Amino acid sequence: MKINEKSIEKNPTELLKKLDKLHPSDIAHSLKKIKKSNPDDFIFVLKNLPEDVLGDVILELPEKLREYAYNELTIEKLTDAVDELESDDQTDILQEIEELNVDKAKEIFDGLEVDDQEEINWLKRYEAGEAGAYMQTELFSANLNETISNSIEKLRIAKEEKELENIHQVYIVDDNKILVASILLEDLIIFDYKKTYKEIIEEHGEKRFKPYKVNDDELIKDVAKQFEKYDLSVVAVVGYQNMLIGRITSDDILDVIEDSATEQMYQLAGVHDDFEHDSFIFTAKKRAMWLFINLGTAILASMVIGFFDQTIQAFVALAVLMPIVASMGGNAGTQTLAVMVRRMALGEIDFENSKDAIMKEILVSLLNGILFAFVVGIITYFWFNTVLLGLVIALSMIINLFSAGFFGATIPLFLKKYNIDPAVGSTVLLTTVTDIVGFFSFLMLAKLILL
Amino acid sequence: MKINEKSIEKNPTELLKKLDKLHPSDIAHSLKKIKKSNPDDFIFVLKNLPEDVLGDVILELPEKLREYAYNELTIEKLTDAVDELESDDQTDILQEIEELNVDKAKEIFDGLEVDDQEEINWLKRYEAGEAGAYMQTELFSANLNETISNSIEKLRIAKEEKELENIHQVYIVDDNKILVASILLEDLIIFDYKKTYKEIIEEHGEKRFKPYKVNDDELIKDVAKQFEKYDLSVVAVVGYQNMLIGRITSDDILDVIEDSATEQMYQLAGVHDDFEHDSFIFTAKKRAMWLFINLGTAILASMVIGFFDQTIQAFVALAVLMPIVASMGGNAGTQTLAVMVRRMALGEIDFENSKDAIMKEILVSLLNGILFAFVVGIITYFWFNTVLLGLVIALSMIINLFSAGFFGATIPLFLKKYNIDPAVGSTVLLTTVTDIVGFFSFLMLAKLILL
Repeated sequence: MKINEKSIEKNPTELLKKLDKLHPSDIAHSLKKIKKSNPDDFIFVLKNLPEDVLGDVILELPEKLREYAYNELTIEKLTDAVDELESDDQTDILQEIEELNVDKAKEIFDGLEVDDQEEINWLKRYEAGEAGAYMQTELFSANLNETISNSIEKLRIAKEEKELENIHQVYIVDDNKILVASILLEDLIIFDYKKTYKEIIEEHGEKRFKPYKVNDDELIKDVAKQFEKYDLSVVAVVGYQNMLIGRITSDDILDVIEDSATEQMYQLAGVHDDFEHDSFIFTAKKRAMWLFINLGTAILASMVIGFFDQTIQAFVALAVLMPIVASMGGNAGTQTLAVMVRRMALGEIDFENSKDAIMKEILVSLLNGILFAFVVGIITYFWFNTVLLGLVIALSMIINLFSAGFFGATIPLFLKKYNIDPAVGSTVLLTTVTDIVGFFSFLMLAKLILL
Repeated sequence: MKINEKSIEKNPTELLKKLDKLHPSDIAHSLKKIKKSNPDDFIFVLKNLPEDVLGDVILELPEKLREYAYNELTIEKLTDAVDELESDDQTDILQEIEELNVDKAKEIFDGLEVDDQEEINWLKRYEAGEAGAYMQTELFSANLNETISNSIEKLRIAKEEKELENIHQVYIVDDNKILVASILLEDLIIFDYKKTYKEIIEEHGEKRFKPYKVNDDELIKDVAKQFEKYDLSVVAVVGYQNMLIGRITSDDILDVIEDSATEQMYQLAGVHDDFEHDSFIFTAKKRAMWLFINLGTAILASMVIGFFDQTIQAFVALAVLMPIVASMGGNAGTQTLAVMVRRMALGEIDFENSKDAIMKEILVSLLNGILFAFVVGIITYFWFNTVLLGLVIALSMIINLFSAGFFGATIPLFLKKYNIDPAVGSTVLLTTVTDIVGFFSFLMLAKLILL
């Protein structure tokens, strides 16, 4: 496709001329560049975008620019733009505007159709991580007793009015709106249109049309796992008594997977989600929190060293070498931790089968502990010309790498058991352990063997 | 859906009875449990799976069990299973069998239909990261001059023979097989079936049916980015002169995104992809490689400390405090690094706009450097009752956190410039810098100020 480079248009008038050929995502990308060189041009383009494009473009802008747009655009313009969107996007935009300006959000809401208002009120109740917060209520459904041709006619009208898109199947409900079946368009198109859905289902058997569905209060992370497991492109969302209320499509799930991987990586590194719009002071504050915790653990490690100040004074070589033990332990532990946290997140490791994983990690660390005990022991011997110093560092290397493996594997499981996200804080806990065990084992052995 | 728990069936006979109700992924999950308690039962179930399920189940097994299955199942059984699969999966399985047993793979290949053989030979040429390696050649296409009803009849036959599934659109090609348009089934179903595709396209305008397409040699990572950017559920894959050769669906892209996030996280932690089937000795070996590199940098840092052995002997407090400086620098740097690497991977940061990101990271680190200079300086003063020692650690804290931010932000960009994956090795490079800068600045300042 390689559309990206060509499609960046920094000239506002040129951009407006080319709208027809551009995806909202590309328009948003151009607008980012335009905003940088001239904020007035940015607003000029937004004001001149057709209403059926404006909302989609706003959604693709980074948060900072979205907020800028909400402030600069009129209530009328925003209402028209929101009106064209699907219910989940309408809800997102209105909630964002509400945070900036409650009155403006209310006026836009009042300008929408009553149906849309009801759907937005419904969707607003879901919490951030729930499936319901990711679903769109627009879908193609039909009653069991309807004929195919009748429902296709309804689809035709909905498509003409641009109320429906991205349709892969028709959801069949009974008179109580309870989801009964899901018939793919690829099947529907070859069936006899004169028949009712009931007849079709009886003819081919219910099993063939069994719908993939999730409850509206399921965690979106779990829904994402089902998409991966069953290779889905859409799921139906049901509420009370299996009543059909919406659907979630794969494009939303792509974002969920990408976001949760980012979150995990950031948590392991001790960073909060780092939104583009955050000021550097805000970011610094959030990161300082983790650095404070790290400082606490670093001071603990220093106190361990402090116990051995006389030993160090007697053998300054100990001060030179001790960071090696701590650093190797920290690294080996981080390796184990990353593998455990990621495999737990992917559902490959849970409590039931954790024993194998822990055993493997411990064996790996022990093996590497022995390997590096030799290597570092010999290097130390040649560096400081003392056999016993080599022995001390070798022994403490084994102890520290073993404990790095053991704690790297068990800390995430332990956190999960207490319902703490294993990615959060496990790095700090682990380095505390590897630093303390590293310094203590090395200096204690030195005190016992060398003095 | 919550299918997972209920659907695990550890009794082989019971499992075979319930096949109808289970997704291949659930059968594979049960088989994993069965294999653990009794390998013979595992093979018993596989041998008794219907051939149209066996292939899909094998694909869902972990690599180790797949290999076990390839060895235990007969050529006939495997040929029947492979015959039922789509071209991309056929190719994957055959390539895996080839690695275990070239002759067996050849006999299975010879047992397939000629069409399948040609497609497999074509797909085998693609390299691992190329779009072509992820595409399936099975798709619903039609000639420009065909009527809709004619092509729907072909779809009906293909579906009856179970040759096609997961169809969202019909791809329209001209007489030279060049991809011209893509018409969604949701549109197709409401058009007049008596018309030819050419008439439909002329009537509604080409723009409406513009296909999303990628070249077969594009990187799958870039294709995944387009899925995210344009909210796609399928793309067409074209080869020489835009000839239609396949398609990639969102379920493959979900795996690509998940896998590349895992890869990134592992690379940051210095772990190779850690396949479930690796023996612990193999894993230990791969990790030892990174630990060796880390050892090298740790020794460098130790040598820096070594230069100041007399300073340390004079002030043992330096040995107690120096890990704090290094640890804070390492942590602040890791925060920056994680954000930069991830945002680069997500395409949010490239060279063009990197200046803002670098500036922000430096400001954040500097701000936190100043904050922690005060905190640590004061703690040190109270701990060791020496104003100058507090001053030394405060100054070196600013220097080290600043350099952590600077190098954390620039190392990944620098690596990318030289076409090295920014996640690989950036952690080691960074901690080398923060350790050396941390120890050196702290001990040098101590020598200058305290002695």
